[in-house]
Amino acid sequence: MYIGIDLGGTNIAAGVVDADGRLISSGAVPTRSERPTIEIVRDMAELAREVAADCGMELADIKAVGIGCPGTINFETGEVIYSNNIKMEHFPLAEEFRKLADLTVKVDNDANCAAMGEYLVNGGGAKSFMLITLGTGVGSGLVVNGSVYRGFNGAASEAGHITLVSGGELCTCGKKGCWEAYASATALVKQTEKAMEEHPESLMHKVAEEFGKINGQTAFLAAKSGDEAAQAVVDAYIRYVADGIVSVENMLQPEVIAIGGGISREGEGLLGPVRDYVEKNGFNKFMEKTRITAAGLFNDAGIIGAAAIAM
Amino acid sequence: MYIGIDLGGTNIAAGVVDADGRLISSGAVPTRSERPTIEIVRDMAELAREVAADCGMELADIKAVGIGCPGTINFETGEVIYSNNIKMEHFPLAEEFRKLADLTVKVDNDANCAAMGEYLVNGGGAKSFMLITLGTGVGSGLVVNGSVYRGFNGAASEAGHITLVSGGELCTCGKKGCWEAYASATALVKQTEKAMEEHPESLMHKVAEEFGKINGQTAFLAAKSGDEAAQAVVDAYIRYVADGIVSVENMLQPEVIAIGGGISREGEGLLGPVRDYVEKNGFNKFMEKTRITAAGLFNDAGIIGAAAIAM
Repeated sequence: MYIGIDLGGTNIAAGVVDADGRLISSGAVPTRSERPTIEIVRDMAELAREVAADCGMELADIKAVGIGCPGTINFETGEVIYSNNIKMEHFPLAEEFRKLADLTVKVDNDANCAAMGEYLVNGGGAKSFMLITLGTGVGSGLVVNGSVYRGFNGAASEAGHITLVSGGELCTCGKKGCWEAYASATALVKQTEKAMEEHPESLMHKVAEEFGKINGQTAFLAAKSGDEAAQAVVDAYIRYVADGIVSVENMLQPEVIAIGGGISREGEGLLGPVRDYVEKNGFNKFMEKTRITAAGLFNDAGIIGAAAIAM
Repeated sequence: MYIGIDLGGTNIAAGVVDADGRLISSGAVPTRSERPTIEIVRDMAELAREVAADCGMELADIKAVGIGCPGTINFETGEVIYSNNIKMEHFPLAEEFRKLADLTVKVDNDANCAAMGEYLVNGGGAKSFMLITLGTGVGSGLVVNGSVYRGFNGAASEAGHITLVSGGELCTCGKKGCWEAYASATALVKQTEKAMEEHPESLMHKVAEEFGKINGQTAFLAAKSGDEAAQAVVDAYIRYVADGIVSVENMLQPEVIAIGGGISREGEGLLGPVRDYVEKNGFNKFMEKTRITAAGLFNDAGIIGAAAIAM
């Protein structure tokens, strides 16, 4: 048995996970990220004890603990080099956690954890597997031969920051034209807002009103009812997503690309056209093709993924 | 000792190469690609015997032969799935070669060979190494832990066909906006021609006249003499190159990126500004950075690279 801890800006979530990635017990406490980090670590250790106790175990029964954390992580040492959400700079997270719970501890970037968790549960043993998450940003993690690909320095797999439109929209990272600035849920909302301004007659206004806000579903829902302006937003957004996937595929040819994040709940309405575009525009015309699927883990992905990197 | 064979559209070049990538002897014959492929293979085997004899060896003294070939190759079987330059479709190149010269034979895509050769000679044992060639197209090869990264299907590492400008210039591959359509020598010539049309006063006209043609050096040379229109071409071209390198780096974080191809002879005039752009725009702000260098192998790269994949 393993424990996975998902250290988020809002909540610390933890759970006991078996070797097949099944979640046995879980719990959560608020992060309260403004307090001293050492107090957050204390709550993480406490929560680990609790979720173990929930299934009748002690920490001594746990093989290893994995911690998924936003930011730049030194996977070898378990040090958080820099994290913005939970203020940390050169913080020895694994070492501090071990002082409170004497276990093997691995710390990794949350996107790498998510990829490893998804691979473990839904990867079907693929030789190479990539998870791309369309959420607030565009996250990604690459698993090659069962291990996370980290690059020589641990900073690899930031697919959200490949260039999609050189010199284009400013990204939160400071560069212009990143894939994330076009294909994230945040970008889709902006694209939807712009189209709504230009098309006061569009059904998108009614959809947004019913939901109480404009979100990643607004254009997709209005398009399903035949709204042309919404369909144009959806078509452009799908091309942005697909064009980035073509880049990833031409570069890496992973056996599987799984698409996660809230927008992936659109299912075949998103995946179908993405596959068509990639089929038509991918450079590989003669060899077996990458399978493009929807990610399967949602709410518990962070916990399962964190446990997976400790396995 | 190894033999490397560089099967090009114009010439077949071959040489004896030692384990450190030093070329001991070499020779070449015309490919005459219009004749039956089997005759080309016969010349390849004959040339292998000759270059071995040139340094007092027989084929029995050779550990293995590597063949670098343009197109889509099945590295496991040595079959050329498809090649456009030398017409081949599902041609068992390794098998046919072995019938004429009983040796271990490996066949790989020429870009993969080039990367492996460059890594062997100039890689300094980097954990991950990428060669990017700015030539007629933009070629690339990735070496991870001493082996070529091929993806699950052998078709990986087509960095020239990552998207640089979604929906932009049409690429020879059929997709719009590929990096190759902006950062190849071919693209630079087009960009130079366009600027020359718009600026009849530009020094580029004189430079091109002296050389007898417009080429990848025209804008660089005129810019060095203070020509503003030429400087604008160079600046834009460097941003195209650098923006693609940022994509590769954000995705893969290779320890070394070596830039090859004719344009890399511009040296620091190209590399300096590329490094500055990547430093400023790369996502990795906290971990050790990728080293960006000029490739060192030029004329013999194909032979040495082909031998390297057989080692």
